[in-house]
Amino acid sequence: MGMIGGGRNAFIGAVHRIAANMDGLIELVCGAFSSNPANARQSGLDLFLPEDRIYPNYEEMIQKESRLPEGDRMDFVVIVTPNHAHFGPAMLALEKGFHVVIEKPMVYSLSEARQLQDRLKQTGLLLCLTHTYAGYPMVKQARRMVNEGAFGKIRKIYVEYPQGWLSRLSERDGSKQAEWRTDPSRSGKSGCMGDIGTHAAHLAEYVSGLRITQLCADLSIFVEGRALDDDGNVLLRFDNGATGTLIASQVAAGEENPLKIRVYGEKGGIEWAQQEPNTLLVKWLDAPAQIYRAGSNYASILSEAATHNCRTPGGHPEGYLEAFGNLYRNFALTLAARLDGTTPTKEALDFPGIEDGVRGMAFIENVVKSNESLEKWTFFEIPG
Amino acid sequence: MGMIGGGRNAFIGAVHRIAANMDGLIELVCGAFSSNPANARQSGLDLFLPEDRIYPNYEEMIQKESRLPEGDRMDFVVIVTPNHAHFGPAMLALEKGFHVVIEKPMVYSLSEARQLQDRLKQTGLLLCLTHTYAGYPMVKQARRMVNEGAFGKIRKIYVEYPQGWLSRLSERDGSKQAEWRTDPSRSGKSGCMGDIGTHAAHLAEYVSGLRITQLCADLSIFVEGRALDDDGNVLLRFDNGATGTLIASQVAAGEENPLKIRVYGEKGGIEWAQQEPNTLLVKWLDAPAQIYRAGSNYASILSEAATHNCRTPGGHPEGYLEAFGNLYRNFALTLAARLDGTTPTKEALDFPGIEDGVRGMAFIENVVKSNESLEKWTFFEIPG
Amino acid sequence: MGMIGGGRNAFIGAVHRIAANMDGLIELVCGAFSSNPANARQSGLDLFLPEDRIYPNYEEMIQKESRLPEGDRMDFVVIVTPNHAHFGPAMLALEKGFHVVIEKPMVYSLSEARQLQDRLKQTGLLLCLTHTYAGYPMVKQARRMVNEGAFGKIRKIYVEYPQGWLSRLSERDGSKQAEWRTDPSRSGKSGCMGDIGTHAAHLAEYVSGLRITQLCADLSIFVEGRALDDDGNVLLRFDNGATGTLIASQVAAGEENPLKIRVYGEKGGIEWAQQEPNTLLVKWLDAPAQIYRAGSNYASILSEAATHNCRTPGGHPEGYLEAFGNLYRNFALTLAARLDGTTPTKEALDFPGIEDGVRGMAFIENVVKSNESLEKWTFFEIPG
Amino acid sequence: MGMIGGGRNAFIGAVHRIAANMDGLIELVCGAFSSNPANARQSGLDLFLPEDRIYPNYEEMIQKESRLPEGDRMDFVVIVTPNHAHFGPAMLALEKGFHVVIEKPMVYSLSEARQLQDRLKQTGLLLCLTHTYAGYPMVKQARRMVNEGAFGKIRKIYVEYPQGWLSRLSERDGSKQAEWRTDPSRSGKSGCMGDIGTHAAHLAEYVSGLRITQLCADLSIFVEGRALDDDGNVLLRFDNGATGTLIASQVAAGEENPLKIRVYGEKGGIEWAQQEPNTLLVKWLDAPAQIYRAGSNYASILSEAATHNCRTPGGHPEGYLEAFGNLYRNFALTLAARLDGTTPTKEALDFPGIEDGVRGMAFIENVVKSNESLEKWTFFEIPG
Repeated sequence: MGMIGGGRNAFIGAVHRIAANMDGLIELVCGAFSSNPANARQSGLDLFLPEDRIYPNYEEMIQKESRLPEGDRMDFVVIVTPNHAHFGPAMLALEKGFHVVIEKPMVYSLSEARQLQDRLKQTGLLLCLTHTYAGYPMVKQARRMVNEGAFGKIRKIYVEYPQGWLSRLSERDGSKQAEWRTDPSRSGKSGCMGDIGTHAAHLAEYVSGLRITQLCADLSIFVEGRALDDDGNVLLRFDNGATGTLIASQVAAGEENPLKIRVYGEKGGIEWAQQEPNTLLVKWLDAPAQIYRAGSNYASILSEAATHNCRTPGGHPEGYLEAFGNLYRNFALTLAARLDGTTPTKEALDFPGIEDGVRGMAFIENVVKSNESLEKWTFFEIPG
Repeated sequence: MGMIGGGRNAFIGAVHRIAANMDGLIELVCGAFSSNPANARQSGLDLFLPEDRIYPNYEEMIQKESRLPEGDRMDFVVIVTPNHAHFGPAMLALEKGFHVVIEKPMVYSLSEARQLQDRLKQTGLLLCLTHTYAGYPMVKQARRMVNEGAFGKIRKIYVEYPQGWLSRLSERDGSKQAEWRTDPSRSGKSGCMGDIGTHAAHLAEYVSGLRITQLCADLSIFVEGRALDDDGNVLLRFDNGATGTLIASQVAAGEENPLKIRVYGEKGGIEWAQQEPNTLLVKWLDAPAQIYRAGSNYASILSEAATHNCRTPGGHPEGYLEAFGNLYRNFALTLAARLDGTTPTKEALDFPGIEDGVRGMAFIENVVKSNESLEKWTFFEIPG
Repeated sequence: MGMIGGGRNAFIGAVHRIAANMDGLIELVCGAFSSNPANARQSGLDLFLPEDRIYPNYEEMIQKESRLPEGDRMDFVVIVTPNHAHFGPAMLALEKGFHVVIEKPMVYSLSEARQLQDRLKQTGLLLCLTHTYAGYPMVKQARRMVNEGAFGKIRKIYVEYPQGWLSRLSERDGSKQAEWRTDPSRSGKSGCMGDIGTHAAHLAEYVSGLRITQLCADLSIFVEGRALDDDGNVLLRFDNGATGTLIASQVAAGEENPLKIRVYGEKGGIEWAQQEPNTLLVKWLDAPAQIYRAGSNYASILSEAATHNCRTPGGHPEGYLEAFGNLYRNFALTLAARLDGTTPTKEALDFPGIEDGVRGMAFIENVVKSNESLEKWTFFEIPG
Repeated sequence: MGMIGGGRNAFIGAVHRIAANMDGLIELVCGAFSSNPANARQSGLDLFLPEDRIYPNYEEMIQKESRLPEGDRMDFVVIVTPNHAHFGPAMLALEKGFHVVIEKPMVYSLSEARQLQDRLKQTGLLLCLTHTYAGYPMVKQARRMVNEGAFGKIRKIYVEYPQGWLSRLSERDGSKQAEWRTDPSRSGKSGCMGDIGTHAAHLAEYVSGLRITQLCADLSIFVEGRALDDDGNVLLRFDNGATGTLIASQVAAGEENPLKIRVYGEKGGIEWAQQEPNTLLVKWLDAPAQIYRAGSNYASILSEAATHNCRTPGGHPEGYLEAFGNLYRNFALTLAARLDGTTPTKEALDFPGIEDGVRGMAFIENVVKSNESLEKWTFFEIPG
């Protein structure tokens, strides 16, 4: 694995390295960690990389790695730069035959997403989009139960993602995270909706197996001086007739990261909350609710999708890093199967990819369009 | 107190009697419990009423009671019939000089609400609208903290009320509760939004002290064969620029009665959930969240509004019936003050009244109007 | 009902009145509220009692009421004085033919308890001991499930009752509650164990249907200047071979009233916590835990014991006062059946009585004896 | 790092590898994974080790590694065999100059522990005992607050560890984990108390900074056919006069791994539960309880001890593997400081070591002795 971005002080780069490292399947062999050469080099040394595998920029890394002998060179790149700097390295990596792991939102615009999709089709290479929350075992359990019809036809989906960390104008106070995420030139058309609304929308579609067909958005900028939305409320309609709401905020003062989803069908439903991720609440119209637990000893009741994505027995909490690790592990298992010429399991194949990325970018476009519209409903379209 | 409606098998009538009875301030002295004479009589006997104070209908009750000597006759009526049968007895009671306690939604239509409002102004009598949830001590604590500016300017209000009890066509299975609530001729223009959406809207305004100015609604009928909405999602805008969402559903299969509100300002916010009503979660941008508890021994930290509405020390849970009792107790204290010629305390005066009722009926009108509109925003208007 | 004790400022007297009053089955007709004549009289007037039914002391009340014609006179007394003043009025009431409702711990000493037990046998009258927590519907559900063998043979019982309200020497700061409860001459041999340890012990035996046979206690006085234990840890052994622990404290600073019980058998178990009383957690060795809820719509799954003791549908929280009300209601239903010559239902008969009271007094004796012993085990004996 | 034990199908070996690997500070370079040569070899190959660093037994590994040039050879061994097979490799490793990471309980007997302690003193090498739960950031926060006197003098400590996984005779059903843990020849004098009671005792002393001075134990074998205790209740007394209880069970059917500790002082206390490890409940006698959260943005309120042991911002749950990783990271930082000749930070030095191991073995001895005694109190002695 070669990393693009993720130098010293970058939050998500370090998370990727822990996640990739977790199961001993993936080794970081090179990196172009920063556009600042000193930071780039120092970051590489911090990670015990040899000097000749620390590159000053992604172009050089991809070019040089592609000339190394197979077995020596990296197998894939992971792109953890700000959104506007995803597309270039992704396209070049594919061109040179490298698979890609990429942060969400996938790129800067829907148009870039479309081009990436085309390139991927042409090359047949793999892309893994790190929608972390899809990596949790209890999310997978929920998805399996919904999809197997345990609750009958789905009627309602409520998904919410209220954070509070942008309640002040932190982008002016030296917060690097706040800076680029609130900057239209780096983040894209949307702030809050692009950053976390996409997670919420992905989770809703991932768990339910449904697709958003219409939406009605009310985005706000609550903190004076900010350039992009820091909050939004959205009404949703899904392809099977279900309706719902999507809440995302970065000014819900006092909240950390409580992404939460509830799905209800005719006979019951599920509730899952990211801050207590090892629990899945399963509700029934005619019976007491049940508490499904990751890794529990009633393994025959849990789906293979859930147990495959656990490392420890019930009651040994796994968290965000393990969920992230699951994306990497499944990607690595799929990649290894491809390299070995074998067929990856259904569980290994279960990581977000290019379709999720395109829908995510379309979500941003449509939610911004709806916000600007006086009409109630905006159709969820993916032009291009 | 004389009761109109609430005969055998009526859910809410029994609740009212327990609530009114709780503090030894109010005595049930007469009733017109049912349009069915046998039920009416038997219900009265169940309650140990003398035969001559059990009336066959509200007209007779109000007329005859009004002719009894002061001191003997009832002081006020409580109206617990289905919505369409609120207006008649309320108007007659006021005409004959009786104060009124009335179930929500207050009447059948906004127009009736306006007439009731006028009559009330003319007579100077008291009206108490039983928005039960406003009776909880921790709701009052939240309201006080928000209003005193503890959290700075309010930005977000999320209120939700997902029930599951109408997930099937229970109105055809002999459920009396389901029957009238889903019947437009008795319930009014809206089912779910009228029944529980009004509670949610009231709670949002009560806690925040703000007023809804615009809304955008998507109502649904999920259960085939039903005549009124059994679900709805609403975007909200408030008079100070805050935004939010209101969720109400009666097809959230597996849910009981988890009304919940979250309010966020610049510096923090509150979260309160009806199913664990003695706890108020107070969140802060820069400090750990706090768990405020009803009746707790750090009484100096709790507002008088909270402590006044508790009967027991912390850790002795009070619930729905006590919250209901608080409405009655405050109404009774206000009424007693009036009878004594004294000034009721601020806490005694804190029960929902005619303004809340008019806004509730307007909420129903506006939310139904918005649902039928293709435009995104409907202004919250109170014509008349 | 005639009340002994419970004048102005008494905590538990007011609770009894609300509870007795709740269901319209019981009327307070007279009282001897205080040994202070002015307080006694004023307390009675507060409660709208006629002057001739407000008595200066219990002797006069019982004597005079016994001479009133049947139908006019009270049916039973409720005794809510400090522990040392239970025995006298209880014995006299029984002598004069009145049934008795009495606070726990039942009397001042085991010897008094034995005498009361004898007198009760002789008279055939009813006694209800207000172990409130046995009145909760989910406690009854737990008891029923355990007793029906849902969990196989019971192995473990953990019961805990940590309060914090006596963390300081409040008995010297004017707290009336603290004063008598920490005074050996009024409270008895034990403070904490008598006051709340008895509740915990009762709950353990009530839910499990087992009997404590041996115990090993370590009691403490943590607050300097206090005369009775304010804390204790106890090892328990039960008659079927199960073991467990009983924790009670009044110096667990920051705790309110979180009485909690866990019972485990071969196949699963239950957990119930008084501060969220409408939920019963049911755990299984081989399946997800279930959340049983009071009043829920899956009523066929709940036992009759649970549903009989609810007043509202699921999600409308009932609390401490309703649990207390259940004791009164069941007592009143049993009493009414006796007066009518009918057979009370199994559910009506389910209130704590003299056997519970004797065992409670024996618990105090034995736990104090064990505390003073150097031997590990003290047999739970009921001498006399 | 060289691993002893932890071959295919071993639970804890895999956990150690993930934990050691997490932060990129430690590399697995060799192993003697199993006494079965084929398993040993295959386990090494699974982990991508070169064949010449996969050893058939620990003696050969330690001998051969000790002859490799510095820089090539392993820096320390980690011992993850069953208890009876800890002492041999630990002593040999120390003799050959290798530092040691070792599973708990540290060895098979107190006598072995004493010898190990002596050897360690002589060699000056490092030993890290993997009491995982001491690695959680919120445990460290609790310890710091208690130790800094935030709650005044500590009065009560309740620690509990109820598991359910040995509710059946699983050791006869092919459960490898159950097999050795219930076998006196491999596990030692105690089953449940050795396996998890030691964790609970360690946590109590670690958080409170106090030492157990007396105990009174009641151990049981509930599952017929089992040779060692599968359950126990213990009364505790601490060196400052505090008292408490320690509960450990492996037959609490339906429980996973809910280790929990509560500590109360004069002014308040803490509650921490391993299954929701990112939350620390801080309770106050005179103020609302607070919810401290790992990684939260009010970092100035959190101790350095807590923030040092977090990898992600608040709301990104970290769990068991990260806590385990913290032990390794702190050990590695301390080791690196030693190799660099610098002084490790206070935070780096905060990992359990030989004193904890000796006390753990003494806890087992004393708790077993108390169980067999008819006297109430057994002094916590560390003979030798």
